[in-house]
Amino acid sequence: MKKSEKYSSIHYHKYLELDKLLSAQIPRSGQFEEKAAHDETLFIIMHQVYELWFKQIIHELDSVCNMFREKAVNEENMNMSVLRLKRVSEILELVIKQIFVMETLTPLDFMDFRNYLFPASGFQSLQFRVIESVLGLREEDRLTYNGHSYKIVFNEEQKKRLDDVNAGGSLFELIEDWLERTPFLKFENFNFLEAYKEAIQKMLDREKAAIEATDILSPKMKELRLKMLGTNDSYFKRVLSKEEHERLVAEGTCRLSYKATLAALLINLYREKPILNVPYNLLMELMNIDELLTSWRYRHAQMVMRMIGNKVGTGGSSGHDYLAMTAEKHKVFKDLHNISSLLIPRSDLPDLPKELNEELGFYYTFNKNN
Amino acid sequence: MKKSEKYSSIHYHKYLELDKLLSAQIPRSGQFEEKAAHDETLFIIMHQVYELWFKQIIHELDSVCNMFREKAVNEENMNMSVLRLKRVSEILELVIKQIFVMETLTPLDFMDFRNYLFPASGFQSLQFRVIESVLGLREEDRLTYNGHSYKIVFNEEQKKRLDDVNAGGSLFELIEDWLERTPFLKFENFNFLEAYKEAIQKMLDREKAAIEATDILSPKMKELRLKMLGTNDSYFKRVLSKEEHERLVAEGTCRLSYKATLAALLINLYREKPILNVPYNLLMELMNIDELLTSWRYRHAQMVMRMIGNKVGTGGSSGHDYLAMTAEKHKVFKDLHNISSLLIPRSDLPDLPKELNEELGFYYTFNKNN
Amino acid sequence: MKKSEKYSSIHYHKYLELDKLLSAQIPRSGQFEEKAAHDETLFIIMHQVYELWFKQIIHELDSVCNMFREKAVNEENMNMSVLRLKRVSEILELVIKQIFVMETLTPLDFMDFRNYLFPASGFQSLQFRVIESVLGLREEDRLTYNGHSYKIVFNEEQKKRLDDVNAGGSLFELIEDWLERTPFLKFENFNFLEAYKEAIQKMLDREKAAIEATDILSPKMKELRLKMLGTNDSYFKRVLSKEEHERLVAEGTCRLSYKATLAALLINLYREKPILNVPYNLLMELMNIDELLTSWRYRHAQMVMRMIGNKVGTGGSSGHDYLAMTAEKHKVFKDLHNISSLLIPRSDLPDLPKELNEELGFYYTFNKNN
Amino acid sequence: MKKSEKYSSIHYHKYLELDKLLSAQIPRSGQFEEKAAHDETLFIIMHQVYELWFKQIIHELDSVCNMFREKAVNEENMNMSVLRLKRVSEILELVIKQIFVMETLTPLDFMDFRNYLFPASGFQSLQFRVIESVLGLREEDRLTYNGHSYKIVFNEEQKKRLDDVNAGGSLFELIEDWLERTPFLKFENFNFLEAYKEAIQKMLDREKAAIEATDILSPKMKELRLKMLGTNDSYFKRVLSKEEHERLVAEGTCRLSYKATLAALLINLYREKPILNVPYNLLMELMNIDELLTSWRYRHAQMVMRMIGNKVGTGGSSGHDYLAMTAEKHKVFKDLHNISSLLIPRSDLPDLPKELNEELGFYYTFNKNN
Repeated sequence: MKKSEKYSSIHYHKYLELDKLLSAQIPRSGQFEEKAAHDETLFIIMHQVYELWFKQIIHELDSVCNMFREKAVNEENMNMSVLRLKRVSEILELVIKQIFVMETLTPLDFMDFRNYLFPASGFQSLQFRVIESVLGLREEDRLTYNGHSYKIVFNEEQKKRLDDVNAGGSLFELIEDWLERTPFLKFENFNFLEAYKEAIQKMLDREKAAIEATDILSPKMKELRLKMLGTNDSYFKRVLSKEEHERLVAEGTCRLSYKATLAALLINLYREKPILNVPYNLLMELMNIDELLTSWRYRHAQMVMRMIGNKVGTGGSSGHDYLAMTAEKHKVFKDLHNISSLLIPRSDLPDLPKELNEELGFYYTFNKNN
Repeated sequence: MKKSEKYSSIHYHKYLELDKLLSAQIPRSGQFEEKAAHDETLFIIMHQVYELWFKQIIHELDSVCNMFREKAVNEENMNMSVLRLKRVSEILELVIKQIFVMETLTPLDFMDFRNYLFPASGFQSLQFRVIESVLGLREEDRLTYNGHSYKIVFNEEQKKRLDDVNAGGSLFELIEDWLERTPFLKFENFNFLEAYKEAIQKMLDREKAAIEATDILSPKMKELRLKMLGTNDSYFKRVLSKEEHERLVAEGTCRLSYKATLAALLINLYREKPILNVPYNLLMELMNIDELLTSWRYRHAQMVMRMIGNKVGTGGSSGHDYLAMTAEKHKVFKDLHNISSLLIPRSDLPDLPKELNEELGFYYTFNKNN
Repeated sequence: MKKSEKYSSIHYHKYLELDKLLSAQIPRSGQFEEKAAHDETLFIIMHQVYELWFKQIIHELDSVCNMFREKAVNEENMNMSVLRLKRVSEILELVIKQIFVMETLTPLDFMDFRNYLFPASGFQSLQFRVIESVLGLREEDRLTYNGHSYKIVFNEEQKKRLDDVNAGGSLFELIEDWLERTPFLKFENFNFLEAYKEAIQKMLDREKAAIEATDILSPKMKELRLKMLGTNDSYFKRVLSKEEHERLVAEGTCRLSYKATLAALLINLYREKPILNVPYNLLMELMNIDELLTSWRYRHAQMVMRMIGNKVGTGGSSGHDYLAMTAEKHKVFKDLHNISSLLIPRSDLPDLPKELNEELGFYYTFNKNN
Repeated sequence: MKKSEKYSSIHYHKYLELDKLLSAQIPRSGQFEEKAAHDETLFIIMHQVYELWFKQIIHELDSVCNMFREKAVNEENMNMSVLRLKRVSEILELVIKQIFVMETLTPLDFMDFRNYLFPASGFQSLQFRVIESVLGLREEDRLTYNGHSYKIVFNEEQKKRLDDVNAGGSLFELIEDWLERTPFLKFENFNFLEAYKEAIQKMLDREKAAIEATDILSPKMKELRLKMLGTNDSYFKRVLSKEEHERLVAEGTCRLSYKATLAALLINLYREKPILNVPYNLLMELMNIDELLTSWRYRHAQMVMRMIGNKVGTGGSSGHDYLAMTAEKHKVFKDLHNISSLLIPRSDLPDLPKELNEELGFYYTFNKNN
């Protein structure tokens, strides 16, 4: 288009390609029955709306990945990334609420056209698989589909798209790389890991002694309290040891590298430091997205149960069970959720050296010259 | 398509016409700038999703209108109507929540492509106008648009669609007709209107006497209480007089006919009677839809204010003011909301004659033979 | 209070007992530390709001149970029941959304007061247990709590309340009774069960023949289609046989009696018949409540995971796992959800005899005399 | 309490003061009628939940005000402020959704106890007034209440609390002060205001010339386009002139000081600069809160209309009109919303001097040593 046409007029109808968009609802029941089933339109539009949102989600995730693919992430892009991920969260919240609309379709009304849909099914949504892959879900993390790869329902072109998705690294891998580059883990004479281990031990010793000394707890309650502490105890040990962590990664219990885990822990603990504000918000949004996708799958499973009960879905599998099982299994950022297990109360945190403290602030203090 | 192909297979991708659907996002900024503005995709998809939902809403409203266009509304369709209107409400709730996604588009990011949209604008959404018209909004009820009819932005074909919408009567008119046919307003020797007028008078007299007699209220408080009563008093009189009501209709203060108003009142008062359950739910859903549309316009107005402040919209009008003003003005079922003003406590309601009471039940009592 | 004081004035502040209410937030951290942890107030208020809503839910469920405890359920109460259950659903939806507020409490901030809460925990919410019991969850349906009865955390008075809850029957039992009293299962010369079995067989035979005859399906696809049909086939048989059903009840796979199941099926199939409108809405609301409670438990489990990761909860159990497991297990009306598996397309439904058809309508036709 | 009791046990029931909390629902109808109106419990609990949330909102707003009351706002508190304001937003979103629960109370059911509430009314919610005042709503900004100050319904102690609220400055004033201290408006040889004025002029001149030169717009369309530009034109001039701005403040059209307005503008324009990330998020949350409160008032007005129609409220005023009018009028941060009107596309923004650019970054680059 010529630059000179920059000021040309455009009608809303044309801009949104409404001719195309609003002619894309073709009920199958209408092709085989005298009259299309009234509710099939809803069924089609529901899924088309999902697909439009999926396109948008991919658009945002791709852009965030690209920002993190640059060698040194442009700092101006950090907050932008958070805002775009937050948008993904908002879309996912909306998409979950959409299930309330879906539930106005009753099982009996669904019967009126269900037979014509075979074997179309949500399993065949390429875009949803792309979203999972961009986030970082690997083939080996996925539930198999009646014993087959989830890719079985896609054609060659679609499979290629899935393979290409993560050529430059999934969001999980990019974030892991970025976390590993955090410059504050070792700082001159301050070693975060050592200081933190010491702080944990001090906290645990103090608590144990206090619980044992108190006379206001029954023996049973003391035991419970110590168990609470003890469980944590071993948990802390397990995670703060590099060897142990690497063993867990090797066996598939966790995925995020040791160094990245420590960086995520540091960001969680010192999130008020100006330089860590945005990184913290970033980790939060990743967890949000994970949780919302989990909720979506779970609500979806409930909805399928309501719609067809125990019947086999149009895709040939038991829809409810598949969805319910993927709900947790397909979570990508589990390791970020688990950081919570490693936290200790702020009052027990090691003090940061004065220099480090300053370096975590801004060059120019926003509020200096008051 | 041949009957024999009834068992043919169809892929999710084809069923949803995803090739068409997902190729319909063409950012204008991408045509004039080196790189399309990142957020224009969101802007397009947001509006496309709106339009898909609008199509679904029209699909439901049309079907409800058709049910009410039959001479004697098929009783089996009554509850079906309610369920479909409830679906419309669910969609509107969703559409309102979508504004949270829209608000992730910041004013500055909007600037990156706003100039290319001229003069496209939400005013040009034909389907939204159709929804308003199907519900019963008339040209004379609408806010003018810079002094012009709202139709000025549409072409001839589109105008024709708007004109044809209500050939068979809008939902407002169809519901009004149906209400006027309620058979219980006069029943042998029971006249609902007379009985109700009497009940109101008795209630008002009793309350007045009691307030005047009590010694626990200060004179100022008595005055306030009587004012509360007095206002109602005149209000009741105003509405329970046919002449007065018709004067109000003539001057445009209200719209629903006198007879239909009485029927709606009766349904509200005796909604527990089995035969009135579903009619009551029907009136509730109409009010819900009205209220949700009002909320949507209002929230939309707020969003426009946030996005462009006091600037003139791409459609050439001050978007915020227009939307804020239509919020209440374009309400269709105001008169149903006003029924509340006519209610009196259940304990003051006139008793229904035994025969009428029976006739408001089922032929066969669900729980008779226990 | 004397009748004469009926017109006394009352201030909003007193009416809501705000002195009591707003002085009931006492952070434990404030008793042991110099300064109360800022976020403990949120934690307390969050849970107090939950408990207020729980009280309201119990108030509604109790009233619905009472309506169904009358020998012959008053028909005027049927729709009232639905409206009250719908209110419960609305409250549960709100309570689920409240988790977004809870999630603004970060794990590290929770650390600031978590130690002081021991062993207080949501497991100790008596009202939540009452809700589950009123709905119909029995002790044997519940997950045990570290090997103990869920009652272990309650004192004698609280245990007594739990025992008394279902003296008059839980909602599940009351609804089961009411379903069993449905008068339409056998009607003169019409036997619903026989007619429905026949209809199913006809439908299955036709579909099988058609699938086998078509030449547009690959053998693999035919097999899948037949499998889909076959699964249903056995499913139908299983449920439409009284003996088989009773065997399933005996082994705990389902709970609702055979007769009640058939009645629920009939209501689902002929829900458009006026007399079945409200019963259908009733069953829908029961399923809604069940589903919302399930969602609430699941979201709650996710939130606990985020808050404390794998740590043991203040109640001494692994909070996340317990909640995640109860999500599905504590569902009460599973059998209603499963009705979906028994439905066949409307076009295959047996015709009702003319007399029955009439009896499912109103005595007086709303729209007769138009 | 003694330190030694730190490990004492506490039961959920006691921790939440449930005895107090759950005994604070006393239906007035139950005092004057044989049986309390069933729905009055809902009415009471609805409002008690509101008041609990209001307490929480005040708790958060107070803490944010205190952070900004320090001479030099502690930078570690900046993000904390944003997170707390975000919590307020989440609560307000929830509180708006609560209206759906309220709407399950039908007008006729409300009648059963409405008479006993006189003159209690939401106008008497002290905490809601405190929230408005803490945010910055002044007496002169408020709608009068039947010609009286809004304080007329409060007793002396309550009035004192209202007067004391803003002893240390409202949030509006504290944010204004903080904005005025922004150090980047003048920076060595860079003057933001001058640079921005120039950029605006260049942009306007270019657009005008282009529109006039193009031959693809009809004269009418050119006129519209120029009008769009022209309106903006004068708008820009009006606001970028200190004298004009101060005139507008004097006449009450806007409130935020000239310097603070420029700072807010700068933050909006350069929000990607690391040092401006959090300040930008802060301004966003303030606007969110304002908008959510407006929505709440508006939805509340709608609900009142539905409940009592045109009747006078129990507080003696026309509830609907009052609430609808305060919806917009009681907005506090209008001026922040209006910043949108002052933005120009990013491509037209003045370049920042290299030194300034660096100073808007971190001392230590997060991603430096990759």
